[in-house]
Amino acid sequence: MDLLKHAITVKGKVLPGDVLKVGSFLNQQIDVRLLADMAKDIFAHFCNCAVTKVLTVESSGIALACLTAQFFNCNAVFAKKSKSNNIEGEMLSAECYSYTHNTANVLLVPREYIAPDDKVLFVDDFLAKGEALRAAVKLVKEAGATFVGAAIAIEKGFQGGGDQLRKEGVDVYSLAIIDSMKPGEIVFRN
Amino acid sequence: MDLLKHAITVKGKVLPGDVLKVGSFLNQQIDVRLLADMAKDIFAHFCNCAVTKVLTVESSGIALACLTAQFFNCNAVFAKKSKSNNIEGEMLSAECYSYTHNTANVLLVPREYIAPDDKVLFVDDFLAKGEALRAAVKLVKEAGATFVGAAIAIEKGFQGGGDQLRKEGVDVYSLAIIDSMKPGEIVFRN
Repeated sequence: MDLLKHAITVKGKVLPGDVLKVGSFLNQQIDVRLLADMAKDIFAHFCNCAVTKVLTVESSGIALACLTAQFFNCNAVFAKKSKSNNIEGEMLSAECYSYTHNTANVLLVPREYIAPDDKVLFVDDFLAKGEALRAAVKLVKEAGATFVGAAIAIEKGFQGGGDQLRKEGVDVYSLAIIDSMKPGEIVFRN
Repeated sequence: MDLLKHAITVKGKVLPGDVLKVGSFLNQQIDVRLLADMAKDIFAHFCNCAVTKVLTVESSGIALACLTAQFFNCNAVFAKKSKSNNIEGEMLSAECYSYTHNTANVLLVPREYIAPDDKVLFVDDFLAKGEALRAAVKLVKEAGATFVGAAIAIEKGFQGGGDQLRKEGVDVYSLAIIDSMKPGEIVFRN
């Protein structure tokens, strides 16, 4: 997705520890025009999948999930991150380790927000080792719903999570896949 | 805003401690059609204010902020909540006490995301005592930018924060103001 790759190249900052900062347009300051174009692209890929719900994880996935849900004319839902599995009410839950922040979280969604007849598209800003995506698959399975696939803004291809999940049969659609990066040089997969 | 009041009446749940749960359509599961209508209403109120940035707080304000920013054709920014004032890089910061969660947070926004010539509209899902709104005013002042006003989905009128801020001259525009509530009975201000 050329608009996104351009924004990453111009505005993204590569930091030590394989961190790519894109907060100025993607996930803290949000360029809603760019994200609407990205959502349109995601819609084009999944438009025949009868998506009924868009699922993401707080906070940085919420913007893209909402704009994507507008195209599918369905609701968006985000999983909350909790440090503990201390759950009130009936919750769907899945453990999720963040290599970026070196923390273990539990993702929580009230069970009533994902129905067994839902066809769920997972949307997120980043995919690295695929921990959040795997947790999302688990949440959807626990709900008895159908996992349609995953739409990712930026996949860190060099971390392998996306390719592994594709091998396992998950439809992982990434708008930009980075094969390598260092300060001043980001190489995208064609 | 009748569509929102209807949704609150039908789907909202009043819990002990003056808690109103609206997670099924407003701030965890997100009814993007309803929120787009709410954003249109917000735009109508502030359309002559030359808004250049929409500011909110993670996580539950992000959806409405993004959809509102689409009408103003500008970027949205959210403040992150941190437990500490331990700041890396140049950050705008403001303390914010949450009476709902009984926690003290520091709201953080990278200084580069709010420019001195920005005209900032604050958007949030709830206003009770007005702590988050006051913190937002402080962030915008610290940035040297102009605070245009606040657009709130649901104001708990009985907690007084909105009326106090209006007395102080802040343009607080709430789509639904609740004057009193108990299980099964929510009374809106006309």
